[in-house]
Amino acid sequence: MSGGPGEFDLIARYLAPLASAVPGAFGLQDDAAIIHTPAGCDLVITTDAMIESVHFLKADGGQSVARKLLRVNLSDLAAKGAVPLGYQLVLGMPAPLDEGWLADFAAGLAQDQAAFSFPLYGGDTVRSPGGITLAVTAFGSVPEGSMLRRSAAQAGDDLYVTGSIGDAALGLEAKLNHRLFPSASRMMFDSRLHLPSPRLAFGQGLRGIAHAVLDVSDGLVQDAGHIAETAGVQVVIEAGAVPLSLAARGALAEDPALRSVVLTGGDDYELLFTAPPAAADAVAVLARSQTLAVTRIGRVQAGQGVVVLDSDGRPLALEKAGFQHFGGSVE
Amino acid sequence: MSGGPGEFDLIARYLAPLASAVPGAFGLQDDAAIIHTPAGCDLVITTDAMIESVHFLKADGGQSVARKLLRVNLSDLAAKGAVPLGYQLVLGMPAPLDEGWLADFAAGLAQDQAAFSFPLYGGDTVRSPGGITLAVTAFGSVPEGSMLRRSAAQAGDDLYVTGSIGDAALGLEAKLNHRLFPSASRMMFDSRLHLPSPRLAFGQGLRGIAHAVLDVSDGLVQDAGHIAETAGVQVVIEAGAVPLSLAARGALAEDPALRSVVLTGGDDYELLFTAPPAAADAVAVLARSQTLAVTRIGRVQAGQGVVVLDSDGRPLALEKAGFQHFGGSVE
Repeated sequence: MSGGPGEFDLIARYLAPLASAVPGAFGLQDDAAIIHTPAGCDLVITTDAMIESVHFLKADGGQSVARKLLRVNLSDLAAKGAVPLGYQLVLGMPAPLDEGWLADFAAGLAQDQAAFSFPLYGGDTVRSPGGITLAVTAFGSVPEGSMLRRSAAQAGDDLYVTGSIGDAALGLEAKLNHRLFPSASRMMFDSRLHLPSPRLAFGQGLRGIAHAVLDVSDGLVQDAGHIAETAGVQVVIEAGAVPLSLAARGALAEDPALRSVVLTGGDDYELLFTAPPAAADAVAVLARSQTLAVTRIGRVQAGQGVVVLDSDGRPLALEKAGFQHFGGSVE
Repeated sequence: MSGGPGEFDLIARYLAPLASAVPGAFGLQDDAAIIHTPAGCDLVITTDAMIESVHFLKADGGQSVARKLLRVNLSDLAAKGAVPLGYQLVLGMPAPLDEGWLADFAAGLAQDQAAFSFPLYGGDTVRSPGGITLAVTAFGSVPEGSMLRRSAAQAGDDLYVTGSIGDAALGLEAKLNHRLFPSASRMMFDSRLHLPSPRLAFGQGLRGIAHAVLDVSDGLVQDAGHIAETAGVQVVIEAGAVPLSLAARGALAEDPALRSVVLTGGDDYELLFTAPPAAADAVAVLARSQTLAVTRIGRVQAGQGVVVLDSDGRPLALEKAGFQHFGGSVE
């Protein structure tokens, strides 16, 4: 972890305690770290960046932003079936430094590092005049050759998703477009938007069961598109089967047009996966063992792209296929 | 490597060929990569970020910025005695995308990936409204337990530096403060500022010879301070012994006040290291074998901090101890 003289030394002082548990981090006193891959395992690496006013607002608070930063990266590891090992952090902040925000950010990292056994190994701290810039490179391990892939779907597979879909997108709808929801619903949507639950244990359980796996970050339909594209198959989603929370069902009952938000919004961080019909029992057993809802929402067949069917089996046209960031654009 | 729909797909199209050589990168089609640590080795990880208008100017050109980005990270690996394995990239660009700059950037990456056998494994591409945002997490390997450390200096050690010091700082002086130099000198200073030479082979050769090692990025005096601080020793630098290029000597002959720029400027990316007097022959043999100039510039003794002595053995007071970035502030 290199910083420099002056006020940016502050950052190092806030971050150093986060690296105290792992010898390979050298207390952030060196410019490099050593990470050990457990015997018989592959080292899985994934990187996710978050940019102020694109992926988060400073007003979300340092603690909330830190926890989401770790959790979106942990969700990537979950989709690989990996066990988290630790992470490198890039933290860019404008001058003058907002020490209160930084303290909250470090507290959020500490909280979720402890929750997920996910220590800081090192990184870089820089001045970033354009706004807060965050990037994490996350490390995890899987038994050799067993990393789950997003490209392994096969025609004939069933399509499943964990948890419920659309809550985070409804939270974003409330936040950006001032959509009104009952306060209990709004709180739940907010929580799902800012504090995703990486499905780590479930992802690990999918090794040897699932074909293609990814975590839903861009939106259900678009991420299904990634599965279709990388495998050269067609993914069929039955819209009526997509699992919704009670709050989301309430919102759609009020305004059926929100269905498109739910299906194409992002930030769910649930696992979307395909598995052969013969694995249906194994999927059900895994879900029960973790008391996590898992729902079959469609299938994989020859063809290309994604088809979303309504309850009468007719293809649905959806308004947008992307994820609306705070910046308002789609990327 | 995850991007999103729309114009940011362009980035992925430019970057995908850079990951074609390593199977663990999965052609950037997955959200994760697998990196293999060679048998009997430790995996060394280091991260360096570069922010537009702080660490570089967009006008420097995409190719030049890309090569510097890889080389500053490779220099960190050199200081660890590591053999480069590959890297993860965060690339943030403002919208609308400047495709010409992006194409140049990808070309620069390709050029130095080939020069240093340093393939892209994955990363993340994002929109960055505040300016171009770059971060690399670099991976290298060292034989188990042999990673060089910045904290291992011992009283009695000699202090050495590779190459010459101050050329890049004089290049920055010309660029920021419009200082005039002879055109041949100016070109050399520019080249040293924008295209550092990571001392990889030399760093690997220092394993088992050197005690403390780091690469000079913040400035000779300040980086000597890091050696002193992490080991709880005092580092003595003999200013007259610091190796200067012919061009730098010419510049100092014209204006002796530039000595402070040379000693405290940054971006040299030479290796600064300590070794016991008994290792002097081994250091000399290593330097000759690589036809790289290596100069003894001081010593390590009990105490703390850094003392810079003039040719009469009197302590020098230096104007600044930091590295002036383009943003004008010190960090």
